[in-house]
Amino acid sequence: MIKEIQGGVCAAKGFTANGVHCGIRKNKTKRDLSLIYSEVIASAAAVYTTNLVKGAPIYVTKKNIENGKAQAMICNSGNANTCNANGVEIAEKTCQLLAKEMGIAADDVIIASTGVIGQPLDITPIANGIPSLVKGLGDYSAYACEGIMTTDTKAKEIAFEFEVGGKTCRIGGIAKGSGMIHPNMATMLVFVTTDCKISPKMLQKALSDDVKDSFNMVSVDGDTSTNDMLSIMANGLAENNEIVCENEDYFAFTKALAAVTQNLCRKIAGDGEGATKLLECKVDGAKDETLAKVVAKSVICSSLVKAAMFGSDANWGRVLCAIGYSGADVDVNKVDVSFRSAKGTILVCKDGAGVPFSEEIAKEILLEAEIEILVSLNDGVGEATAWGCDLTYDYVKINGDYRT
Amino acid sequence: MIKEIQGGVCAAKGFTANGVHCGIRKNKTKRDLSLIYSEVIASAAAVYTTNLVKGAPIYVTKKNIENGKAQAMICNSGNANTCNANGVEIAEKTCQLLAKEMGIAADDVIIASTGVIGQPLDITPIANGIPSLVKGLGDYSAYACEGIMTTDTKAKEIAFEFEVGGKTCRIGGIAKGSGMIHPNMATMLVFVTTDCKISPKMLQKALSDDVKDSFNMVSVDGDTSTNDMLSIMANGLAENNEIVCENEDYFAFTKALAAVTQNLCRKIAGDGEGATKLLECKVDGAKDETLAKVVAKSVICSSLVKAAMFGSDANWGRVLCAIGYSGADVDVNKVDVSFRSAKGTILVCKDGAGVPFSEEIAKEILLEAEIEILVSLNDGVGEATAWGCDLTYDYVKINGDYRT
Repeated sequence: MIKEIQGGVCAAKGFTANGVHCGIRKNKTKRDLSLIYSEVIASAAAVYTTNLVKGAPIYVTKKNIENGKAQAMICNSGNANTCNANGVEIAEKTCQLLAKEMGIAADDVIIASTGVIGQPLDITPIANGIPSLVKGLGDYSAYACEGIMTTDTKAKEIAFEFEVGGKTCRIGGIAKGSGMIHPNMATMLVFVTTDCKISPKMLQKALSDDVKDSFNMVSVDGDTSTNDMLSIMANGLAENNEIVCENEDYFAFTKALAAVTQNLCRKIAGDGEGATKLLECKVDGAKDETLAKVVAKSVICSSLVKAAMFGSDANWGRVLCAIGYSGADVDVNKVDVSFRSAKGTILVCKDGAGVPFSEEIAKEILLEAEIEILVSLNDGVGEATAWGCDLTYDYVKINGDYRT
Repeated sequence: MIKEIQGGVCAAKGFTANGVHCGIRKNKTKRDLSLIYSEVIASAAAVYTTNLVKGAPIYVTKKNIENGKAQAMICNSGNANTCNANGVEIAEKTCQLLAKEMGIAADDVIIASTGVIGQPLDITPIANGIPSLVKGLGDYSAYACEGIMTTDTKAKEIAFEFEVGGKTCRIGGIAKGSGMIHPNMATMLVFVTTDCKISPKMLQKALSDDVKDSFNMVSVDGDTSTNDMLSIMANGLAENNEIVCENEDYFAFTKALAAVTQNLCRKIAGDGEGATKLLECKVDGAKDETLAKVVAKSVICSSLVKAAMFGSDANWGRVLCAIGYSGADVDVNKVDVSFRSAKGTILVCKDGAGVPFSEEIAKEILLEAEIEILVSLNDGVGEATAWGCDLTYDYVKINGDYRT
């Protein structure tokens, strides 16, 4: 039994958060430094970008949570601290300054950065901002959420309550991510907190398994960022028996984790840069799940499918085309395609060939803000879902002049 | 010694061409049916899309040139004849009608189609158009070139003169391709003619080797079409000794072939849907050529790099990011990046980190219509070039409502 609740990353017992404007961004009305804190040391796990070019904070976080423990997460927006000669030094200095201010250990800090690549990051605004950031800690998940946003237009927050071994647990997360979204192994920045008691080893396993069906199935623009990171802290304050193996409790936890991550996936895809529509491609009848994933992701990534959806054009030939070049071994003569939204469902392709359909009804269905592209391969029982968004004028506008 | 000449696909001895409006397209001012004819039976070769969903004409052409011979190429625009239940029947019927009109064999015809996927193709306008198409054959490469265009804004024609064993030969080509351009093994529609005498086997070898460095290195939008085809007819009327092995004559021929294909690559990329700029990514210093190709193509395919180039924004961090997720084994701390155009060259990244540069000069360089992105991996001698274009509002506009 999983129930949505309020509170984001502060929903779980013992977690507080905050976000301030410290001056990395020129716009003084936008928070640019965020903090999440656990009153006790927590189990910690993370997954990271597979990009060979990695942000400096990634290296520092990896080292800091090697022992499976953390107590705070700090993150700045406005600068990715990537491809900077002194990047690691700046990230380590940030952890030290925060640790000193809070009286915790510097190597119990998870650190992340997001923004422009290749511009030196000045420690001064961070150093100046840390005291008020720490002082203001409270039930402020929303401030922390704002502090990590870049081109995001919507805050991405969620929390659930669930039960493990008779104890009520809570899990909540915040995320940012709008452009350069094509995660592989991890995603944009996602911070999850839970008071469920779980060993670091099982926490890492749960997280690594989860991303295969959640963030690795999201794409906004096919570009895998250098700073992707999904991290989680589990502080155990719910007082359930510690989860140390793949038992019933573990699956209760992974189910709650999936509820958080899949909710944030939809929020990230729906708020893709310039997006007017959330696209969900659901593939069934595949020989196996891997094949279903490859097909779903290929459809979601096609620039032509994305542009057609922007124009509410039922151009299903582009869906077939994307299936055909996906690399998956598909019998194209068995493929059915339908479009579905709140306005209804319409079958447009049966056995790999077009069927007559009403363009008027198709248009009405595709004018909605959430579109499902349903693909049946009729060749097995494998299923998968991928999330994306339409390709719009505004994507080009946002990215034609992001840096200046 | 290769010299550019006039005449496109009619430059080579014994070739004539034509293009007419037969009525597949509603717009009566746009030719939609093209023909290229050799007065003698020619050696023929082709490479095709790797998309599992293939246009019906691809199957028919494959069968027709199995014996390495052809005498005519016919192509319609306005309808891809793909994902249609009776597609192969229509394509075969077209070959038969043309063959009857010309007094040639139906299986000596290369056939291609381009346009919307999944809409039935009516044989009537084609049957009605063939007589005038044949009657009007002459030195009309430009008409044939127009008849194969879809969203192309520029005709893509080229011809060269070269020498093989003391004999003057000619080779020329026409191409179409603007959207759904991310060829793999072949490309959009490209028709090449030559009067060089060469065996079908060597002709196929030359073509298959050539595409690896030419059309397979072009991307407009990452979508591999269902109808990609590059075909060539060599009718031997230049009277050189037939090329039957990899001798000096063969290399003289492949050099001329590369001059045609690489010229058409630049033309296709520069006329990408909505494009305002041709992008050329030149990678050197790679461990090997394969790795250089992977890196060059990853940069050219990045939506974020493409959008930055549209905005004339020297956002080199996105170039580094695309190198990092390319999958190639690169030492990112050795990478240098420069931008170059007719206005000059500017170094923006050295050893994987930013260097100070004048934003003003960078802007001036990037405002040009042809931009080179120069990447030095400083790790070997492998080199490669890939061609692409910027991502613009007009790409979205063209594809948001292409079908209706």
